[in-house]
Amino acid sequence: MKAYKDMTKDELLSLKAALEEEYKIAEAKGLKLNMARGKPGFSQLALTMPMLDVINSQSDMRTMLGNDTRNYGDLDGIGECRRLMANILGVPKDNVIVCGNSSLNIMYDTVSRSMIHGVNGSTPWCKLDKVKFLCPVPGYDRHFKITETFGIEMINIPLYDDGPDMDMVEQYVNNDDSVKGIWCVPKYSNPTGISYSDEVVRRFANLKPAATDFRIYWDNAYAIHHLYKETQDNILNILSECEKAGNPDMVYMFTSTSKISFPGSGVSAIASSLKNVDFIESYMTVQTIGHDKINQLRHSRFFKDIDGLNAHMELHANLLRPKFEAVLTTLENELGGLEIGSWIKPRGGYFISFNALPGCAKAIVAKCKDLGVELTGAGATFPYGKDPEDSNIRIAPTFPSPEEMDEAAKIFVLCVKLVSVDKMLEGK
Amino acid sequence: MKAYKDMTKDELLSLKAALEEEYKIAEAKGLKLNMARGKPGFSQLALTMPMLDVINSQSDMRTMLGNDTRNYGDLDGIGECRRLMANILGVPKDNVIVCGNSSLNIMYDTVSRSMIHGVNGSTPWCKLDKVKFLCPVPGYDRHFKITETFGIEMINIPLYDDGPDMDMVEQYVNNDDSVKGIWCVPKYSNPTGISYSDEVVRRFANLKPAATDFRIYWDNAYAIHHLYKETQDNILNILSECEKAGNPDMVYMFTSTSKISFPGSGVSAIASSLKNVDFIESYMTVQTIGHDKINQLRHSRFFKDIDGLNAHMELHANLLRPKFEAVLTTLENELGGLEIGSWIKPRGGYFISFNALPGCAKAIVAKCKDLGVELTGAGATFPYGKDPEDSNIRIAPTFPSPEEMDEAAKIFVLCVKLVSVDKMLEGK
Repeated sequence: MKAYKDMTKDELLSLKAALEEEYKIAEAKGLKLNMARGKPGFSQLALTMPMLDVINSQSDMRTMLGNDTRNYGDLDGIGECRRLMANILGVPKDNVIVCGNSSLNIMYDTVSRSMIHGVNGSTPWCKLDKVKFLCPVPGYDRHFKITETFGIEMINIPLYDDGPDMDMVEQYVNNDDSVKGIWCVPKYSNPTGISYSDEVVRRFANLKPAATDFRIYWDNAYAIHHLYKETQDNILNILSECEKAGNPDMVYMFTSTSKISFPGSGVSAIASSLKNVDFIESYMTVQTIGHDKINQLRHSRFFKDIDGLNAHMELHANLLRPKFEAVLTTLENELGGLEIGSWIKPRGGYFISFNALPGCAKAIVAKCKDLGVELTGAGATFPYGKDPEDSNIRIAPTFPSPEEMDEAAKIFVLCVKLVSVDKMLEGK
Repeated sequence: MKAYKDMTKDELLSLKAALEEEYKIAEAKGLKLNMARGKPGFSQLALTMPMLDVINSQSDMRTMLGNDTRNYGDLDGIGECRRLMANILGVPKDNVIVCGNSSLNIMYDTVSRSMIHGVNGSTPWCKLDKVKFLCPVPGYDRHFKITETFGIEMINIPLYDDGPDMDMVEQYVNNDDSVKGIWCVPKYSNPTGISYSDEVVRRFANLKPAATDFRIYWDNAYAIHHLYKETQDNILNILSECEKAGNPDMVYMFTSTSKISFPGSGVSAIASSLKNVDFIESYMTVQTIGHDKINQLRHSRFFKDIDGLNAHMELHANLLRPKFEAVLTTLENELGGLEIGSWIKPRGGYFISFNALPGCAKAIVAKCKDLGVELTGAGATFPYGKDPEDSNIRIAPTFPSPEEMDEAAKIFVLCVKLVSVDKMLEGK
C-alpha cells in the first residue's frame, strides 16, 4: 500500500474516481446501521435474562442480615450488594454506597452537591468566580456534558497510551486552586480503550492539590469488561494508593452493572474514603429514603461474587470479540499503510477510537451518515463537542451484529479514504 | 368524663397517683413498639409479591411500542407506565415523566435544579439573597428537610380542615417575589389526613405570584390511598385548574407507588405543563440515560390501569382500617371529653395527627419512649423540627399489627393523660 501523502496529484485523482464508483454502489444499498452509542447487543441482553427468575413471589426477600428489602431502610445499600460492588472496584465494603440504576446520575449528583454545598465543608462552588475541571481527551461525552451544564470550565488534557499527560495534570492541579476535579475512565478508557499505567495511577495519588476540594472522578465503568482472557489489563487501586500517599479523601470511584446486567436496570455504586462516604450520606438521606433494594438483592443473588461476575463477563466477551475484530480487521486490511488514520486495538471496554487526518472527522461522519451508517457525532469526545483537530471518531461496535458491523466498517473505511483523498488534493 | 381543666387540684393529684400506678404496670411489660414512620406492614407487602412473577426470563421485554426495556432509551418512561402514573394523577400521559424509585428524589432534584439553573430561564436561586417556601403545618418532615438543606427560609402556614390558610398564602405569594414555592400534600395530608376543598384548589390555581418562578409543589402521595370505599375524598385537578386560570406552568405534581407496590422498589412520577416537562427533561438528559424501565414494565403489566390500582388499594385498605380504628377507638374511649387533646379521623393516607395541650408534645413522646413505644419525634411535622406550640404528634399506625397498635395506643393515651395532669397542676 502506498501512503496517500506519497501519491502524485494524478494518482490521487484516479484513486478518487475509483472510490466514487464504490460510493455509488454503497449508496444503492440503502443501509441503516448504527455505530453511535455504546449499547449492548440483543444477544448480550439475553445473557442476563435468568436474573429475572432469581426473585419471584416465593422468594425470601430478606438480606443476609435479615432486613426486608421490600420496605424502607438500608440507605447505603444492602450488605451483599455493597460487597458485590466493592468486589468490582477492589475496595472494602464499608467504603461503598450502592445507589440507583445509573452511575452517571451519581456523578451528576456529586457535582451538583459540590456546587451547592461544597465538598466536606468547603465553599460551595456556585459561590466561586471560577471552577475548572481537567478533561483527558478524547473522553466520554456525558462526563463533559455534566460539567458544561454546571458552567464549569473544561481544560483539555491529552490522553496517551498509558493515561493522561501527567506533567500537565500536576501543573494544573498543584498550582491552580480553581481546578476542582478531573474526569477519568482509567480502564479500557472511553473511547480509546487504553488503561492507566501504574506510574500514572501513582502520580495521581501523589498529587498535591492547590484546592482542598479537588477530587479525582474515577469512573471505572469497564472494570471487568475484558475482551480477551489472556490479555487482561489491571490497574492499581487508586483508593489505597491515595491513602498511602496521604491523600485519603482525594478520589471518588464510580461503577455500575449497566454493561454487566441491563443498561437502565442495573445497580450503580460510589466508593470513597469513610469521611467522604459520611459526607455524601448526610445529603443522600435528605434526597431519598433509599434506592431499589429488591434489584440489589436480585443482582447479589444472581452474580453471587466476583467469580460469578467474571464468568458472566466472559460470555459477554465471546459475543463482543467478533464485532470488535470485524472492525479492526477491516481497518487493518483497508487502511494499513495508507497513513490516513490511526487507531488502538482495545483489550476491553466498548469502543474503538479512530484518529483521522486533521480536519477530516466531521466530513467522514457526515459521509457515513449519507450512506446510512450512524456514528457518534465528530467532536463528541471533546469538551463542548469541539475537537480542535477535527480528527477523532468514536466507533461503538457492540450493538450491531458481527455481519452488520463488518458492513458498517467497510462503509467507514470507504468514507475515510474519500475524505482523505480530498484533503490531500487540497494541498496539491 | 370530666374535662381536666375543670378538675380541682385534689382531683388532679389523685388522678395522677392512679395514672402512675398504671404507668408502673405498663413499664413492667417492657414493650417495644414502633409508631414512628409511615411504613407499610408485612401483610401489605405480601399483597404485591405476585408482581415479582409478572416479569421473568421468558417475558417479552418490549413495550407496547416495541422498545426493548432492557436497553437504553425512553428517558421520560415507557408509554404504558406514563399512562399508569397519569391515571393516578388524573392528567394526560404526555404531561408525565416517570422517574426512579422515589418521588422525594424528584422533589429534591427539582429544588436542586432551581437552585443552580433557575426555573425555565429565571435567575438561579443560589444567586438570590433570599428564597422562601411556604410550609403548611403540620406537614411532612422530609419536605421541610429538603428546603432546609438548601438554605431556603421556611414560613409556617396553618393547615385547616379544608387546606392551608389561603388568605395567608395569597398574601405571601402575590406580594413577595422571594416566595418561590409551597409544599402541599393535597389529599389525605401527611399528617392530618385532610383533603383540600375545591375552593382551596381554585384559590391555589388563581394565585397571582409576584415571582415568575413560583411553583406549587403538589405531592399527591396518597392519591388513591382511601381507607373506606364509601367515603372517598376527591380533589380538583390542580393542573387543569391552573390552565383554566391562566397559570399553566405554576404546578409540579408528584406521586409514586411507594405505598402501592413496594417502598423503595416502586416507580415515581412528576407531572406538569408541557413547557415545564421540556425544561425538566433538558436537565434530566444530562443527569441520567434513563430510569429503570424493567421495573416500569413490571408495574404496568401487574396493575394494568386505574381499575387494577384501585382494586389493589382496596386490599391495602382492608388491612389498614383495623389499625387506624384501634387507635381512633382508644383515643375516643380514653380521651373523649377530657379536653386534653384533639384529632381528626382520617378517611385515607398513612397517619393520625394528634394535638396535645400546648407544651406537652415533647414530654408525651419522651414518656412513650420510656415505655417502649416509639413515635415520630415531636416537632418533626414543622419546619426546622420546631413546633411553636409543642403540641402536634404524628401517629403512624400502618407498620405494627392491629393488636400491637391497640397496645401502643393504650400506652399513648396513658402518657397523654400523665403529661396533661402535670401541665394542669402547674397552673394550680
